[in-house]
Amino acid sequence: MTETLRFDSSSSELHLLDQRILPHQTAYIRCRTHGEVADAITTMVVRGAPAIGVAAAYGVYLGALEALKNQESISHTMEQVFALLAASRPTAVNLFWAIEKMRRVSERHMTADPQIWRQALLEEALRIHADDVESNRRMGAYGAPLLPAGGGVLTHCNAGALATAGYGTALGVIRSAVSAGRGIQVYATETRPFLQGARLTAFELLQDNIPVTLLCDNMVGSLMAQGKIQAVVVGADRIAANGDTANKIGTYTIAIVAKEHGIPVYIAAPCSTIDLQIASGDQIVIEQRDPAEVTHLQGHHIAAAGVQVENPSFDVTPARFISAIITDKGVAYPPYRETLAQLVGSD
Amino acid sequence: MTETLRFDSSSSELHLLDQRILPHQTAYIRCRTHGEVADAITTMVVRGAPAIGVAAAYGVYLGALEALKNQESISHTMEQVFALLAASRPTAVNLFWAIEKMRRVSERHMTADPQIWRQALLEEALRIHADDVESNRRMGAYGAPLLPAGGGVLTHCNAGALATAGYGTALGVIRSAVSAGRGIQVYATETRPFLQGARLTAFELLQDNIPVTLLCDNMVGSLMAQGKIQAVVVGADRIAANGDTANKIGTYTIAIVAKEHGIPVYIAAPCSTIDLQIASGDQIVIEQRDPAEVTHLQGHHIAAAGVQVENPSFDVTPARFISAIITDKGVAYPPYRETLAQLVGSD
Repeated sequence: MTETLRFDSSSSELHLLDQRILPHQTAYIRCRTHGEVADAITTMVVRGAPAIGVAAAYGVYLGALEALKNQESISHTMEQVFALLAASRPTAVNLFWAIEKMRRVSERHMTADPQIWRQALLEEALRIHADDVESNRRMGAYGAPLLPAGGGVLTHCNAGALATAGYGTALGVIRSAVSAGRGIQVYATETRPFLQGARLTAFELLQDNIPVTLLCDNMVGSLMAQGKIQAVVVGADRIAANGDTANKIGTYTIAIVAKEHGIPVYIAAPCSTIDLQIASGDQIVIEQRDPAEVTHLQGHHIAAAGVQVENPSFDVTPARFISAIITDKGVAYPPYRETLAQLVGSD
Repeated sequence: MTETLRFDSSSSELHLLDQRILPHQTAYIRCRTHGEVADAITTMVVRGAPAIGVAAAYGVYLGALEALKNQESISHTMEQVFALLAASRPTAVNLFWAIEKMRRVSERHMTADPQIWRQALLEEALRIHADDVESNRRMGAYGAPLLPAGGGVLTHCNAGALATAGYGTALGVIRSAVSAGRGIQVYATETRPFLQGARLTAFELLQDNIPVTLLCDNMVGSLMAQGKIQAVVVGADRIAANGDTANKIGTYTIAIVAKEHGIPVYIAAPCSTIDLQIASGDQIVIEQRDPAEVTHLQGHHIAAAGVQVENPSFDVTPARFISAIITDKGVAYPPYRETLAQLVGSD
């Protein structure tokens, strides 16, 4: 599988697979500064909540290298680094979680030798990176038994290896189920406007020889009515304390339609996606992106000129539509306010 | 407003606005034979159930001109004409309704002078054409009071002037409501894969200075949850005796989500769309179209190469999701089995 991101310690460069041009071209963007990492997150060179978190951790480390070189105080520069990276995208909480982890390491070693401080930050970023892959594997093991043997499984957007440091959240669960011989047929929504399903999910499943069928977002009801879908599994960008889940725009619509057909909806996300600081989904900030993402495709104008556009990048699926939340520490079932707090608290 | 189709009696040519290249280019395709008309329907040069019906009526007339010229018996040739046109697309019943009307006129005048037979067919096609515009205006008058003054109205695909001989079914109701000063904000789904919403609905509403906002198909749940939509109005390709309605793929998904939010769903269609011959939507044939419509856009490959594809062109919305059916003879409410039969039977 193509690597989503790779840190070169010798040159101190973060190499990010440019997901905007996949699957037609495979190219890496090299980031040497925290500003370049923030820009790559904003412009969706790298996307997917866990991958954004890992990229931001390396972004903090690159910011630390910059802080060591310039004239201002290190702690002052680091505040700017944290702030710029935190402003890169608003919805996925893994971004803030990773920045917070890095901030804690930075503060703990601030009075030490600058090289020890630098080394501690590098090690923390590498640990966040390695932990993500490991956490996806655990999620896969917990979630695989939930998927229906021989059934159709719908996924939305890309919650795969490309959305993480590797293996994937929702696609990790699917990979584990396939490895366990459950014979799953994957259905992938194309996921307008960015086409993560058509471009990324289809690409990475085909690479792994997992059967995948592409559909337009508006075909979900039709396929469910035809009995082709037995389960839905998607990722998450932020999960509130009560289980309300922000994920790629369209997830809420799918969840309603699944409920109407009695089809279970599973969320797969590491505990770093759970935000116990907010009581419910009402408090999740939803990013609005450029209208041109809807009116243009690969540089071509596809809509009538001058039309107004809505482009919310995420929606919130209320907990009552969610059958279970598969995490790296186990599977949570309703009532989520209790079960999520238990999982996050456990170690 | 740009004319959807125009018959030139002097040259005996049907001019069809090529809707595949709108809104970027405005060009007409000239059909001189029934085969060219059938091909234009199949390839979606002309689309929209009522427009397809009108085009097919002229197609029969062009077939009659061919029959007069060739050596075979007229009735034998006409059977081939009816069969070819009927095979052009399977779902919209207006196609079969228009062919059936033309067949009856043909049979009634078959023993008359060939020129009288020809003239009768031309007059019938012109009548079907003129009646369609008139019927849309009546539908608009019946439906306008149902739309919420000052509210957001969601429409899907294009059920406008471009889907009919003029004025439109769902967009006709919207036009009438706007003319009556109801101050409506239209929300148009882009309608993948053919983008009828982004290309056609946005285009024709902007031409009429009716406020319209474009959204991707998967944003419907988000916008409804935000309280931006107070009603849904869409067209139809076939309505069964019990009110089950086949319409553009995605309509069923929208209807489920609307019901979850307590938002009314209105179907706007002339009585020629009602098929009392079939008891329920289970019996409606759903057209499956070329996978390339999903994997490619304007000639560009947008999906991972080699992925399997679902591309049903329509879905069926069960009657229980439909608040009312707005026809050219009045508004039908549940129980549709009774109210639709009454409307169709009335004159």
